[in-house]
Amino acid sequence: MDPKLQDLKTRLLEASDLDAVNRVLSWDMETYMPPGGGAARARQSATVAQIAHEKFTDPAIGKLLDDLRPYEESLPYDADDAALLRVTRREYERAVKVPPAFMAQLYSHMNSTYQIWAEARAANDFARVRPYLEKTLDLSRQFAEYYAPYDHIADPLIDMADYGMKAATIRTLFAALRGRLVPIVEAITDRPQADDACLRRHFPEAGQWAFGLDVARQIGYDFERGRLDKTHHPFTTWFSVGDVRITTRVDEHYLGDALFSTIHEAGHAMYEQGIRPDYEGTPLGHGTSAGVHESQSRLWENVVGRSLPFWQHFYPKLQAIFPEQLGDVSLETFHRAVNKVERSLIRTDADEVTYNLHVMVRFDFELQMLEGKLAVADLPEAWRERYRADLGILPPDDKDGCMQDVHWYGGIIGGAFQGYTLGNILGAQFYETAVKARPAIAAEIAQGRFGVLLGWLQENIYQHGSKFTAPELVERVTGGPLSIEPYLRYLQGKYGELYEL
Amino acid sequence: MDPKLQDLKTRLLEASDLDAVNRVLSWDMETYMPPGGGAARARQSATVAQIAHEKFTDPAIGKLLDDLRPYEESLPYDADDAALLRVTRREYERAVKVPPAFMAQLYSHMNSTYQIWAEARAANDFARVRPYLEKTLDLSRQFAEYYAPYDHIADPLIDMADYGMKAATIRTLFAALRGRLVPIVEAITDRPQADDACLRRHFPEAGQWAFGLDVARQIGYDFERGRLDKTHHPFTTWFSVGDVRITTRVDEHYLGDALFSTIHEAGHAMYEQGIRPDYEGTPLGHGTSAGVHESQSRLWENVVGRSLPFWQHFYPKLQAIFPEQLGDVSLETFHRAVNKVERSLIRTDADEVTYNLHVMVRFDFELQMLEGKLAVADLPEAWRERYRADLGILPPDDKDGCMQDVHWYGGIIGGAFQGYTLGNILGAQFYETAVKARPAIAAEIAQGRFGVLLGWLQENIYQHGSKFTAPELVERVTGGPLSIEPYLRYLQGKYGELYEL
Repeated sequence: MDPKLQDLKTRLLEASDLDAVNRVLSWDMETYMPPGGGAARARQSATVAQIAHEKFTDPAIGKLLDDLRPYEESLPYDADDAALLRVTRREYERAVKVPPAFMAQLYSHMNSTYQIWAEARAANDFARVRPYLEKTLDLSRQFAEYYAPYDHIADPLIDMADYGMKAATIRTLFAALRGRLVPIVEAITDRPQADDACLRRHFPEAGQWAFGLDVARQIGYDFERGRLDKTHHPFTTWFSVGDVRITTRVDEHYLGDALFSTIHEAGHAMYEQGIRPDYEGTPLGHGTSAGVHESQSRLWENVVGRSLPFWQHFYPKLQAIFPEQLGDVSLETFHRAVNKVERSLIRTDADEVTYNLHVMVRFDFELQMLEGKLAVADLPEAWRERYRADLGILPPDDKDGCMQDVHWYGGIIGGAFQGYTLGNILGAQFYETAVKARPAIAAEIAQGRFGVLLGWLQENIYQHGSKFTAPELVERVTGGPLSIEPYLRYLQGKYGELYEL
Repeated sequence: MDPKLQDLKTRLLEASDLDAVNRVLSWDMETYMPPGGGAARARQSATVAQIAHEKFTDPAIGKLLDDLRPYEESLPYDADDAALLRVTRREYERAVKVPPAFMAQLYSHMNSTYQIWAEARAANDFARVRPYLEKTLDLSRQFAEYYAPYDHIADPLIDMADYGMKAATIRTLFAALRGRLVPIVEAITDRPQADDACLRRHFPEAGQWAFGLDVARQIGYDFERGRLDKTHHPFTTWFSVGDVRITTRVDEHYLGDALFSTIHEAGHAMYEQGIRPDYEGTPLGHGTSAGVHESQSRLWENVVGRSLPFWQHFYPKLQAIFPEQLGDVSLETFHRAVNKVERSLIRTDADEVTYNLHVMVRFDFELQMLEGKLAVADLPEAWRERYRADLGILPPDDKDGCMQDVHWYGGIIGGAFQGYTLGNILGAQFYETAVKARPAIAAEIAQGRFGVLLGWLQENIYQHGSKFTAPELVERVTGGPLSIEPYLRYLQGKYGELYEL
């Protein structure tokens, strides 16, 4: 190997390992850290983050990228080394634009805001967190300014999560989707509601835990290279291709919570576990965008995990674990229950049809706040109005209104929400392509065999990590650009049948 | 504060935090890491260790120490800043003597050796690990050479663990102790053996776990700033004064294993939890030596945890958890069982009387190997002979002979063993002093009140961290130098009564 490429890879590995170390610190903080550990941990984590940033933005990396440009240009676009140099350059140029002092300020502010939000939310006291959120908005705008010029101030922030996407593109896309979604929601809510009482009986934790482990294992999450723990909010994290962990939470009075969170996180995790091991320690060694990542979690959670074939296989096993709770519930009733559609207050609890309406509210608010058209002080009222207009329900308080979600209070404003709906769209688009290529997928799932689907995803998506951008990947995999049609076909097919539309 | 002192403290905090981060990585590796995580974790840990070393050996620290020398000399010896500068200088001068490349080589070799030892031990195959151990000996000698000149080649290695101690001092001390211990062991083994069958019934894990948590909490280990997990080998680790964790293991067919390991580790942990919070992030912010650390674990495990007053309080609670197993066992029988003395093969399982004989074997072998008088190839035979001569039993194989212990296979040869016996000696010496100052200690313990003892230890030992060296601390606390007499008085009193000598 060219010694300069070797040098570059060694430096990237070091920076990447420090990022991974920081994720270990976060994972521990969320899972097992005793209360007394918090103060020192925040400081330790900031120290590691700063060193990782210094290592990655070392001018020596810029010099190596310059020196290696002729080599990169001599390679075909799809060559691994070309992709490595291209993606590294993109991330390097992004990282060096922001002064380390600003990153430290942002990091420290986000830490305080998160603490205050947790308290303010419990007390339903938006006024308490308001000055922090105003500062967050301020810092988010400053952050974007480092990337000027832009078409829209949100563009640089969106670009970080979903490279190649812009506010204008997403606005158009969301408007089109919204126009087609709202009639579906209205048609469904005109019909008699599905009854999900069978999910709201008492399900002891041990049984839920055993079932969740079994489902994750059977769909293909590799426990030799991962583990499942309990946290307040479910998440996925990765320290290497050999150690990709997921978490979930358990509500003994709602079966859906732990189960679908586990499948969702297993979807994220199988993506990370499936990346080519030789990409580890480089900017290619993780999922390519928020939207593509979410496409995998939502595909496994909803398209697979709420499908009839999935429950044809798993429902008898679940009944065996909970004979008293589910012995009198038919497969059809259970399947309808896990697909109940209703207008609700909380995004993370929303069904897969109305979910996007929640996302669109947030996305619009992010743009308006960044544009200076919506003041933080006016957010609670704007939130109530919009939920009444869009979801048809009035949030009773700010706690479950504009303070419901950790986003904005644990990170910047901008770029945080579009990925969820992009994921719904792409998940359906990828799945439709997969089924075209492997028509047996649904029948296999009904038999408890997930390898055909997983193998196809692995081959076409997972292994590539960040080698291709999301738009490139969609084009390569589906033969065309991102499209909302497969998602709408999926919703119309599934819910048309379930609700006899 | 003097800006130079502030600068120094900031730099020390960063290096100390990176060390703490590495301990988080190790803790996770031993507790929860899935098998696939090992390779990347070793690399990540090495990266953090190297950066921590670079930060601590930065010439800027040396310069600050030089610039601050007049300030240090203007202070009384006992002033905190004086201690900070003195201890930092000592550790800095030690650290800069060793080239980073050597540390990396040593680190990587120890990692491989540990893996090979684990396999070789399971296969009882000393030949497999022999070349690795030879290399370890080689590296240990090289390591010591960086600190030449010395009186004995082991001195620099002993000094790292027990500052101020030398091979010659310890040899004399051990010879004196041995001359007094062997007759006690002989007298005890001439008497009818205690019967510990009551500890070897079936004790389900959940009950053992609950009891261990209760004991640790009652003696004063703070779970708000700590936690207990399961590992193959019990240990204590600390990430800050607010996060000091312990681990244990559980054998359902031997009650003593989890219980006394937990108390032992809680002893180490209460020492770390008791250090003054403002020492955190400096070289003062941890226990002062291996011997003093071990004095606290052994004091709580043996002097307290195997005492009659301790069990007067706890035995009814233990019987309530295990009524079938212990309902027919009297307090006296139980107390004799947990103090059974017998010549055995394995140091870590040894009773508190014969334990030191095991340590002395290892200490002598360390010196002989470092001196070049004992070749690694001859170790298995030398081990067998020495165990026959000193303990009166012949190890049936190398697995439970010279491969029994992770020491030497997970670290250098030299300095690893003397701390255990120093701990036994000092634990008794500190306890005797504590009881003189607070005669109610034993009566309080019988009532389940551990605060008088813990408060005395906190006040006299724990809070100081590394402010005083072990010899200074012993002098301050007991009014004289280290002495074996309190330990011998303790053994003669306790075992004289138990075995009616």
